[in-house]
Amino acid sequence: MTGTTPSFSAFTRFLALTALLALGMHAQAQTDPLPSWNDGAAKQAIITFVEETTMQGSPKFVPPAERIATFDQDGTLWVEHPMYSQVMYILESVPALVKAKPELAKVAPYSTVLEILKGDRAAIAKLTLPDLEKLAMATLTGMSVDSFSAEAKKWLAEAKDPRWKRHYTELTYLPMQEVLTYLRANAYKTWIVTGGGQDFVRQYSEAVYGIPPEQVVGSAVGTKYGYARDGSPFLTKEPKLLLNDNNAGKVEGIHLMIGRRPHMAVGNTSGDQQMLEYTKAGDGARLSMLVMHDDGEREYAYGPAQGLPATKVGAFTQALYDEAQKQGWTVISMKKDWKKIFSFE
Amino acid sequence: MTGTTPSFSAFTRFLALTALLALGMHAQAQTDPLPSWNDGAAKQAIITFVEETTMQGSPKFVPPAERIATFDQDGTLWVEHPMYSQVMYILESVPALVKAKPELAKVAPYSTVLEILKGDRAAIAKLTLPDLEKLAMATLTGMSVDSFSAEAKKWLAEAKDPRWKRHYTELTYLPMQEVLTYLRANAYKTWIVTGGGQDFVRQYSEAVYGIPPEQVVGSAVGTKYGYARDGSPFLTKEPKLLLNDNNAGKVEGIHLMIGRRPHMAVGNTSGDQQMLEYTKAGDGARLSMLVMHDDGEREYAYGPAQGLPATKVGAFTQALYDEAQKQGWTVISMKKDWKKIFSFE
Repeated sequence: MTGTTPSFSAFTRFLALTALLALGMHAQAQTDPLPSWNDGAAKQAIITFVEETTMQGSPKFVPPAERIATFDQDGTLWVEHPMYSQVMYILESVPALVKAKPELAKVAPYSTVLEILKGDRAAIAKLTLPDLEKLAMATLTGMSVDSFSAEAKKWLAEAKDPRWKRHYTELTYLPMQEVLTYLRANAYKTWIVTGGGQDFVRQYSEAVYGIPPEQVVGSAVGTKYGYARDGSPFLTKEPKLLLNDNNAGKVEGIHLMIGRRPHMAVGNTSGDQQMLEYTKAGDGARLSMLVMHDDGEREYAYGPAQGLPATKVGAFTQALYDEAQKQGWTVISMKKDWKKIFSFE
Repeated sequence: MTGTTPSFSAFTRFLALTALLALGMHAQAQTDPLPSWNDGAAKQAIITFVEETTMQGSPKFVPPAERIATFDQDGTLWVEHPMYSQVMYILESVPALVKAKPELAKVAPYSTVLEILKGDRAAIAKLTLPDLEKLAMATLTGMSVDSFSAEAKKWLAEAKDPRWKRHYTELTYLPMQEVLTYLRANAYKTWIVTGGGQDFVRQYSEAVYGIPPEQVVGSAVGTKYGYARDGSPFLTKEPKLLLNDNNAGKVEGIHLMIGRRPHMAVGNTSGDQQMLEYTKAGDGARLSMLVMHDDGEREYAYGPAQGLPATKVGAFTQALYDEAQKQGWTVISMKKDWKKIFSFE
């Protein structure tokens, strides 16, 4: 027996060990990436899409740099009922505004908001979309970008949803979190494309979804550059809507901020319709999905024939459902497709 | 001698080999990341900045997610004389416009452009910034985003710089390419923040700089979503400036598109001043740099006391140089700091 043979055999054992490890990793890669999803068309559509677009040699292969997936937020990644959390934030910012300008207390929509905050929840129905825009502009105008961040962060750390008594940031859908993680593990860049305020969502997108601020496209007002008394530069929010990131605005926002057509998009109302049709109209593999809120027990039931009031900006109407069928978008039934909705269940 | 010892010794040898490999990798990491830079304050400032912000435990450590570096393009990453390449593109798009609307041939600024293209280079001086904006709007309005991409790509593949007789995309500065690569190897996200057209720069940013389209912030017009006769959706360019990405607009654009203050910024004219001061005013380690064009032999000499005409949008004036000194920005002398300017030298 020479000195070579045993070390060679040791090397063989090392190789075998490496192979075993590699097999282990492979086995791990084969475990279910979407454990909170029930088997069905929606889950299968996601897995097929990811496999077809990422497997080398696949006719539908998409180079990593072009792997863009966009997600609406309210109602798609987290709860939007009974009211968008950002609307609650705006309403709860009104008392400070009224304190600074007491004459507003008797003027609508400020007076309506004060009623709502005193407990008259039904008064929310009186607020129109232009009212909300007016309130949003009034509460943020002239605020520095840094003060806005600090106040939004403070509110998010304190405010709680009335039904679950949990922070809004806990009310994300576990199955969608799994989709985000699965896509990123396959070199997809995940983006939020929301009708909500871009600067608001950026305060928590990284901590809550693993999506960095620069991958959040949302409604945005302009800012103005200026200098403090000590000469240090800062940005102030201006009452000028730069991007209304709803409906066609979502596609325009995607072009402005991303510059490529997504390969996958998920939404839940007619405010997402254009994003879904634009995504689906691209060549190669494209996946458009609609989240349907049909689980009145575990979450809320609204949309086609559910009888619950539509959300302010868009709605999941029968027409939208028909459009999904016609264009080949995949509908996700929260009731049937999701084993678990929240991680705290 | 048992069977264990030799395999153990083989394992030891394996460990030693691994250690050697690791050392080799370490040695490689120690090789000069900026070989086209001469030793000096500018090179040292870059290396110190990267080491201080990326070494675990350093008091100036910056978490990877916050590592943002922004670069002006014209005059900072590539040649901007005698005229921005995009301005050449716009001028060379005018004949097609005049062909479609012959009445324009006798109206300024279209008539001026036709003179320039016939060979009267001096006539370029007649064009004002509003003229250029007017031409840009006229040549792109009503064009679909996809047609714009295709035409810009075609032009870039054909057009050549008059001095070097090379494609514009070959005229990037090798030392700056090294900085981009060095930053990315240290988990920095590199961004272009240009006064040039966002959609124009996005056509080549990935191939030329390794910077994907979504990391290009530039001047941008609005787009409008619509449908072709066959029902397929598309975006058309609108004659409405959404973002004028010059001066204070660069900081406003950074907030809109990135949402974080950069840790490093590089520019070369007063059009970059606000970006550089905003970057430098952040807490922790911040590096602001100004490229000074002082090499009339290898490139061009213009700026403080160089006598060459300033570029249209901004200029490297004596006042800007003084500002750099006052605020602690690092000035890069192309003549002294750069061993090589172009890769083809």
